[in-house]
Amino acid sequence: MSTFFKDIPQIKFEGANSTNEFAFKHYNPDEIVLGKRMEDHLRFGIAYWHSFAYEGGDPFGGRTFERPWFDGGMENAKLKADVAFEMFDILNAPFFCFHDLDVRPEGATYAENQRNLEEIVDYFAGKMETSNTKLLWGTANLFTHRRFMSGAATNPDPDVFAYSAATIKSCMDATIKLGGENYVLWGGREGYETLLNTNLSREADQAARMLEMVVNYKHKMGWDGQILIEPKPQEPSKHQYDFDVATVYGFLKRYGLENEVKMNLEQGHAILAGHSFEHELALAGSLDMLGSIDMNRNDYQSGWDTDQFPNNVPETALAYYEVIKSGGLTKGGTNFDARLRRQSLDSGDLILSHVGAMDICARGFKAAAKMFEDGTLEQARAERYADWDLPANQEMLQDGTLEGIQRHVLTQNINPVPRSGRQERLENLVSTYV
Amino acid sequence: MSTFFKDIPQIKFEGANSTNEFAFKHYNPDEIVLGKRMEDHLRFGIAYWHSFAYEGGDPFGGRTFERPWFDGGMENAKLKADVAFEMFDILNAPFFCFHDLDVRPEGATYAENQRNLEEIVDYFAGKMETSNTKLLWGTANLFTHRRFMSGAATNPDPDVFAYSAATIKSCMDATIKLGGENYVLWGGREGYETLLNTNLSREADQAARMLEMVVNYKHKMGWDGQILIEPKPQEPSKHQYDFDVATVYGFLKRYGLENEVKMNLEQGHAILAGHSFEHELALAGSLDMLGSIDMNRNDYQSGWDTDQFPNNVPETALAYYEVIKSGGLTKGGTNFDARLRRQSLDSGDLILSHVGAMDICARGFKAAAKMFEDGTLEQARAERYADWDLPANQEMLQDGTLEGIQRHVLTQNINPVPRSGRQERLENLVSTYV
Amino acid sequence: MSTFFKDIPQIKFEGANSTNEFAFKHYNPDEIVLGKRMEDHLRFGIAYWHSFAYEGGDPFGGRTFERPWFDGGMENAKLKADVAFEMFDILNAPFFCFHDLDVRPEGATYAENQRNLEEIVDYFAGKMETSNTKLLWGTANLFTHRRFMSGAATNPDPDVFAYSAATIKSCMDATIKLGGENYVLWGGREGYETLLNTNLSREADQAARMLEMVVNYKHKMGWDGQILIEPKPQEPSKHQYDFDVATVYGFLKRYGLENEVKMNLEQGHAILAGHSFEHELALAGSLDMLGSIDMNRNDYQSGWDTDQFPNNVPETALAYYEVIKSGGLTKGGTNFDARLRRQSLDSGDLILSHVGAMDICARGFKAAAKMFEDGTLEQARAERYADWDLPANQEMLQDGTLEGIQRHVLTQNINPVPRSGRQERLENLVSTYV
Amino acid sequence: MSTFFKDIPQIKFEGANSTNEFAFKHYNPDEIVLGKRMEDHLRFGIAYWHSFAYEGGDPFGGRTFERPWFDGGMENAKLKADVAFEMFDILNAPFFCFHDLDVRPEGATYAENQRNLEEIVDYFAGKMETSNTKLLWGTANLFTHRRFMSGAATNPDPDVFAYSAATIKSCMDATIKLGGENYVLWGGREGYETLLNTNLSREADQAARMLEMVVNYKHKMGWDGQILIEPKPQEPSKHQYDFDVATVYGFLKRYGLENEVKMNLEQGHAILAGHSFEHELALAGSLDMLGSIDMNRNDYQSGWDTDQFPNNVPETALAYYEVIKSGGLTKGGTNFDARLRRQSLDSGDLILSHVGAMDICARGFKAAAKMFEDGTLEQARAERYADWDLPANQEMLQDGTLEGIQRHVLTQNINPVPRSGRQERLENLVSTYV
Ligand SMILES: [Co+2]
Ligand SMILES: [Co+2]
Ligand SMILES: [Co+2]
Ligand SMILES: [Co+2]
Ligand SMILES: [Co+2]
Ligand SMILES: [Co+2]
Ligand SMILES: [Co+2]
Ligand SMILES: [Co+2]
Repeated sequence: MSTFFKDIPQIKFEGANSTNEFAFKHYNPDEIVLGKRMEDHLRFGIAYWHSFAYEGGDPFGGRTFERPWFDGGMENAKLKADVAFEMFDILNAPFFCFHDLDVRPEGATYAENQRNLEEIVDYFAGKMETSNTKLLWGTANLFTHRRFMSGAATNPDPDVFAYSAATIKSCMDATIKLGGENYVLWGGREGYETLLNTNLSREADQAARMLEMVVNYKHKMGWDGQILIEPKPQEPSKHQYDFDVATVYGFLKRYGLENEVKMNLEQGHAILAGHSFEHELALAGSLDMLGSIDMNRNDYQSGWDTDQFPNNVPETALAYYEVIKSGGLTKGGTNFDARLRRQSLDSGDLILSHVGAMDICARGFKAAAKMFEDGTLEQARAERYADWDLPANQEMLQDGTLEGIQRHVLTQNINPVPRSGRQERLENLVSTYV
Repeated sequence: MSTFFKDIPQIKFEGANSTNEFAFKHYNPDEIVLGKRMEDHLRFGIAYWHSFAYEGGDPFGGRTFERPWFDGGMENAKLKADVAFEMFDILNAPFFCFHDLDVRPEGATYAENQRNLEEIVDYFAGKMETSNTKLLWGTANLFTHRRFMSGAATNPDPDVFAYSAATIKSCMDATIKLGGENYVLWGGREGYETLLNTNLSREADQAARMLEMVVNYKHKMGWDGQILIEPKPQEPSKHQYDFDVATVYGFLKRYGLENEVKMNLEQGHAILAGHSFEHELALAGSLDMLGSIDMNRNDYQSGWDTDQFPNNVPETALAYYEVIKSGGLTKGGTNFDARLRRQSLDSGDLILSHVGAMDICARGFKAAAKMFEDGTLEQARAERYADWDLPANQEMLQDGTLEGIQRHVLTQNINPVPRSGRQERLENLVSTYV
Repeated sequence: MSTFFKDIPQIKFEGANSTNEFAFKHYNPDEIVLGKRMEDHLRFGIAYWHSFAYEGGDPFGGRTFERPWFDGGMENAKLKADVAFEMFDILNAPFFCFHDLDVRPEGATYAENQRNLEEIVDYFAGKMETSNTKLLWGTANLFTHRRFMSGAATNPDPDVFAYSAATIKSCMDATIKLGGENYVLWGGREGYETLLNTNLSREADQAARMLEMVVNYKHKMGWDGQILIEPKPQEPSKHQYDFDVATVYGFLKRYGLENEVKMNLEQGHAILAGHSFEHELALAGSLDMLGSIDMNRNDYQSGWDTDQFPNNVPETALAYYEVIKSGGLTKGGTNFDARLRRQSLDSGDLILSHVGAMDICARGFKAAAKMFEDGTLEQARAERYADWDLPANQEMLQDGTLEGIQRHVLTQNINPVPRSGRQERLENLVSTYV
Repeated sequence: MSTFFKDIPQIKFEGANSTNEFAFKHYNPDEIVLGKRMEDHLRFGIAYWHSFAYEGGDPFGGRTFERPWFDGGMENAKLKADVAFEMFDILNAPFFCFHDLDVRPEGATYAENQRNLEEIVDYFAGKMETSNTKLLWGTANLFTHRRFMSGAATNPDPDVFAYSAATIKSCMDATIKLGGENYVLWGGREGYETLLNTNLSREADQAARMLEMVVNYKHKMGWDGQILIEPKPQEPSKHQYDFDVATVYGFLKRYGLENEVKMNLEQGHAILAGHSFEHELALAGSLDMLGSIDMNRNDYQSGWDTDQFPNNVPETALAYYEVIKSGGLTKGGTNFDARLRRQSLDSGDLILSHVGAMDICARGFKAAAKMFEDGTLEQARAERYADWDLPANQEMLQDGTLEGIQRHVLTQNINPVPRSGRQERLENLVSTYV
C-alpha cells in the first residue's frame, strides 16, 4: 500500500440521507434498474491520464500537483500504477482507461517504448488478477510528443504514419491482453493549424487507411471489442477532422467503414462543436453508432475543453435517456475524461471528485430510466408523427413524385393546419423526473 | 421606369483611381484573368429577397425601409419586379436569384400561390427578353409561413410534406422556365427546436426522400442544372440538419445522393458553424461538392446570421483561391445573400452596397488568380507531402498492415524528425498578393 | 370572461406527488422559507410583451400564434388586457410587467400614443382594484418603431432624444399611477451597428443625461421605486452600451449615478455576455446593485437571446443563492422575460410554461435557502480567506507599500505554500441541496 | 555572436516590389507619415516570452522547439539574451518587452529570484549600451508558478499577496533601471475558477490596493512611465477581473485610480471578450485610457487566446485609425504579443513572422493615416450628429427635464424622420484606403 490515500476510507453506498462526504448517496451498484444492476448499466471508468498523469498545468502555468510518481522512470510508473489501483479499489470502480503514454516512461526509440509498455502491461495484469477493476478501453497517445505535432495518421511525413501505426499496434495488443472491451481513437493532431500548408484529400485518405488497418488487425486478432472514434471539433488543432458525430459518420461512409467503427462521445466535445450532448447522443443513436461515453462536462462559457466532472442532474438525465433509447452501454461505459481543477491539490479531491460524479450519474440515470419506463415522453413523440403511419402517407413517402404530390395537393386542396409542438409541456414533464 | 433609382447613374468601371462613389474601381467585367472574362468567372448574382423583399426588421424592431411595393398584391409584385430589373441594369448584374415568396403575393391556397407565381414568372420572362440578367438559381421559401413552423420535408405532418413537395415543383418549374442554372434547397426549418419532440430518424428519411424526388424530377424534366444544398448550422432552428459541408456530405452518402447534389456555400453560415469560409470551400472542393457561393460575411462577434456585404479583401481572396482550385464556378456563381443594414434606408445604399461588394470580390479574385498562377503556394504545399510520393511509402499507404509497419519501424528504427510547418511564412506569402 | 383560457383551471399547489399537469408541485405561495412566505420571496412577474404581444415571429418567419387581440386598435388592446388579467388570476401571479407598446395601440403622434396609454392605464387600474396582481415594473419600448432605429437617448437626431424623453415620462407616470415598484430601462438600440458612423463620447453623454433626467423625475414625483438598468451585450445592436454588470457599473460611476440606479439582471443576457448568471448576480450583489431579476434562460448553443422559461434546478438554485446573499428581492421580483417557443400555439402552453417555470424557481429557491441556512458553503469560503483577518495582514492590506512588503518577504523568507481550492468538493456540497 | 540566426541577413526595407522574403516591403522606418517617422509612430516591440521562452507547448503537447538556451540556469539565460538582442538587431526593432520569468532562472526563494533578475538586468544594460533597442515595458509573471494558482494580488493567502508585491517591486525596479517607458499588469490569475470558493468583494479590494501601491511606488521613484492594465476576459481563469476596457474602467473609477492607470489593449483579448479590437480601442480612446497595444490577432473560430501575428491589413488599419484618433502611441507602442505556431520550428520562422507582422502593421498604419488626413470619414460622422450642435438642442441636453421635453414634443408635435446610417457607403469608403 502506498501512503497516497492514507486516511481515506473505502467508499460505500450510504443512501441519500448520509452526510458522509466519503460515501455514495445515490450510486448503489447493486440497485436494480430496468432489470439490471446499476453498475452493469453505468460501467464507470476512471481515466488514467487525468487522474494520475495530469500535473495541473494549463497554458499559463505549470505543475501544481505534487505526486511522488511524477518525473518519469519505470519505478515511478509502477508507483503510479499502485496508486491507481488503490483508487480503483477505494471507489470500487468497475473499469479504467489509459493511453500508452499515461502508464509507461517515454523511451528514446519505438522499441524502448514498446518494451516499457509491455513491462507495465504485465504489471497491470498482475494487479488485475486480484482487482475488481477491468479495462474499458485502451488508446494510443499520438499527440503529446513533438513527432506528432503535424498529425499522426495524417502527417505529411510517412515516417510518422509508420511510427503511429506501430504505436497503435502496441496499444491494441496491450488492450487485448488486458481484456479491454474497446479501443478508442482520438485524433487531436489529425487536423490542421492552417489550411495553407494542408492537403485535405491526402490527409483524409491517410486517416482512412490507418483506420482500415486498425479494423483489419482487430479481425486478424479475432478480438471482438469495439473500435471507437472520439469526435472533437478543435483544440489542440484549429480544426480536427473528427469534428462531431455527423462528420465522423460521413467519413466512415466515405471509406466504407461505417459497420466496423462506432463512437465514443464526450459532453465537452459536443459543446465545443456547438451541439448539446443529447444531440450528439441522439444522432449517434439514430445512426447506430453510439459505442461509449465520456461523461465530463465543459464549462459553457469557456471556449476550450475544460473536462470537468459532471454536476448537473437534469443534463445527465437527458444524456442517459438517449443512451437507454439506443440500447444502453453494452461493451461501452461511462468514462470520466475529467480532471481535477488545478487548484484541487489533495488526494481527497481526487477521490471525492469521482464520488460526486458517480452520484450525479446515478441520479441522472435513474431519472432517465424512470422516464423511459413510464413511456409518456415517447408516447407524445410518437403521436406527433402519427399521421405518417397512415398507409396513404407511407405510400407518398415511399413512392411519391413531385408531380404526383402536386396533383394531390391541388385536387385535395391540402392546406396544413399547424399543431402545437408543446415544448414547454414536455420540458415540464422531464422536470418531474429530475 | 420607376422613380425608385432616379438620379442614380449606370455603374461603370472607372479604375482604381476613380473617386466616383457610383463606379466600379476594381470590377471590370471584360478584364481577362486566367484566360476568361472577370464577369464569366465571378458570375455575380443579386438576391431578390434581401434587396427587394426585406423590410428592415429584426427581432426587436419592425420595418424601417419605405418601399412603394411593400404591402402585397400583384400590382406591387410587378412594381417590385420593375425596380429589381432596373437595379440589375444599373449594376449590369449578370444574374439574380429568388424564392417564390419574394416575387409573388401569398395566396390563400396552394393553387393561388401557383397561379401567382406563374403570372410573375411570365412577367419576369418578358423582362428577361431584353435584360442582360439571367437566373442563377431559384428556390422555394419553405420557412416563412406558419405552416412550415415545424419543418417542410421533415414536418411531423405529412400534409406539410405534400405542400412542400408541390411548392418545390412549382419553383423548379419556374427555375427551368426562366433558364436558371441551379436549384437551391436551404432548410431553415429542417431541424428542431427541441429534441424532446423530435424523431431524428424519421426526419432524416423524410428529408432524403424529398431530395430524391427533386433529383428525379430534374431528370424527368431533362434539366441539366445543378441541385444544391445550402448548409447552415442553426437559426432559425436550434439545430439544422444541413449543419455544414461535412454533415451534408454524410447525409448525401447515407442516402446515395452524393453524385446528384452539390452545395451552395455561404461565408456567414461557415462562421456560425465554427469554421472559416475557406475551410468549408476547401472541404467541399476536396469532395467535389462545390457548386456555388453566397459571398456574404457574418459579423465575427454576432451569434446570428448577419448577412453583410463582403468588405475584406484578404478573406475574399482566400475564398476565391479555393474556388479556383476546385475548378471555378461553372454553373454556379457569386450570389450576394446580403442585406442592407436596417438603418441604410436609401435607394443609393442599395446600389452602393452591391458596388462595394463587387469591387471587393474583384480584388479578392484577382489576388487569388495571381496566387494560383504563380504556383508558389501550391509548390510549398506539395513539397510538404513529397515523401508520400516515394514508391515505398505509397505501397505502405495502399497495402500496409499494423503488424507489417511495426516490423518496419523496429528494423529501421524509424524515429521521425519534425520539420517546420512554415505557417507564418506562408501567411506572409499570401499577404504579398492581397 | 374571454374564452381564451376556457377549460383551463385555476392553478393550485398540490405537492410533489401530484400528477396534474395544471397544478403547482413545488411552488406553495404560503410556505414559509427563511422566515417569509415563498410568494413574498420570489415575487413572480408575468411579462406582458412575451405572453400577450409576441406573435411567434423569428428572423425567418412570421406570426404563428392566433390570438383574437392581434391586429391593433383599442378594442383589441382591452381584450388583450382582459385575457392578461385572466391569466394573472389563473396563475395567481403576484406581479406583472409591461412596456407601453405592449398594452396600447401605436398612434400617429406622440400625443396619440400618450392618450392611448392613459386610456389603457385607466383600464388596468380598474382591473387591479379586484385583482391580486400588482405592477412589478413598467418600461418604455424605445426599440421597435423605426424612429428608434439609430438609438433612443443615444440617437444622432436630438428629436429622437426628445421623443424618447417624453415617452419615458409617460411610462414613468403610468408606472407610478399603477403602483409599480420599479422602473426599468433596457437599451436595445443604445449601441451601434458600426463604429464607423458612431461617436461613442457623444452617445455616452446623451445616455447619462437621459438617465439623470429619469432620476430627477423620480425624485420630483416623490416616488420611492427603484430605477433599474437591464444589461445586455448585443442583439439587436452589434454592441450595446449596457453590456454587462461591470460595464453598467462603470457607466454609473462615470456619471455619478451609482447611488440612484440598480440593475435588473437576466440569465439569458449574462450568457450572451460570456458570463454565468451567478457571476452577474454575485458581482451586482458585491456592488450593492442587484435590484431585480429576469429568470429566463438562454440556450447555451444559440448565439441570440432565446428567452426561454427556466428548467434547470441546479442553475436556478445558484442564482437564488446569490440573490439571498445580497439581501433578497426587496422591491424587485422574479420576472419571466420568457416567451413560448413559436410552435407552442395553444393557450394551455402559455399557462403551463409559467407553471413549470414557477415550480423550477420554487425548487431552486428552496435549495438555495437551505444551503444558506446551513452555512457550510459560506464557512468554507470564509476559511479560505481567514488569514487575511489576522491583524498583521489587515495592516499590510491597508497601509502596505511595495518596498515595505519586499523587506518583509526578504526578512521572513516568505514562500507561500498552495492549499487546495476544493472546487469539486464544494460542487458536491451544492449537489446535496439540489 | 551565437549561431542561432546564422545565414539570416539584416532585414532592410526594399519596397513593395521586392521578392526577397527577408526584407521589409512596406515598413520603412524613416518614411514620414503624419509628420513623423514611421518607426516613431509604430514603436514596434518584441515580446521576450513568446519569442525566446515559449517552448512550443499547448494543452495536449509539450515542447516542439529546440533552443540551446532552454532548460534553465544563468548561462542559458545569458545565451537567451544574446540571441534576443541579435534578433532585435536583425529586425532593427526599436523596443522589447519582458516578464521577470522570461529572462531569469527561477530560484528557490524570492531573494534568489531577485538576485537572478538583477544579474540579468545588468546583462541587459550592458547590451543596451550598444543596441538600438529600448525597453517598451516590463512586467511581472504572477501566473506561471504554482504559488500563484489562486491569484496574485487576489489570492486568499496574504503571503502570496506579499510575494507578489515584492515581485512587482523587483520588476518595476528593473523596468526603471533599463529605461522602460511603461509598466504593465496582466492578471491572468486575478479571477476565479469557481464562484463557490471566491469572495468577490475581498478580491476586488486586494487588487485595488496592490494597484495603489504600484502607483505610489511609481511616484515615490519619480518615474514618469505609464502604468498599464491589460484586459483579458478569461483564460487561464474561468473569469478574469480585468475582463475588458469597460470593466477595467469601472474598477479604476471605483477605487479612484482612473487618472493614474491606462490600458494595454490586445486584439486577441478583445475578440475573446466578444468585441472587435476597434471597439476596445475606440472605447479606451473615448475614456482617455489608451496606453499601448498588443497587435496580435486571435483566430476567430478558436475559443482560446491564439496570439497570432497580424495578417489582415483592413483590420489593422481600423485599429490604427482608432490609435491615431486618440492621439497616437506616445509612451506606448505596438507590441507583438504573438508566438510562432508550434510547428514553426526554425529560426527563420521567428524572424519572418515578425517581418510579416511589421509589414502588415505598416500597411495598416499608412492606410489609417491617409484616411485620417483626408477627413472624409470624420466629416460624415460629424454630420450625422450635427443637429446636436444647435443651441436649442445643446440646451435640452444640458438642462432638460422629462416634463419640459414632453411639453416640447407635444407643442411642436415632434415626429422624428429616420435618416440613413450609410454603413455600407462608409465601409466602401474605408475600402478605398486599404
Ligand atoms: Co475533452
Ligand atoms: Co474524451
Ligand atoms: Co445567411
Ligand atoms: Co445563403
Ligand atoms: Co432576453
Ligand atoms: Co429581460
Ligand atoms: Co493574448
Ligand atoms: Co497581451
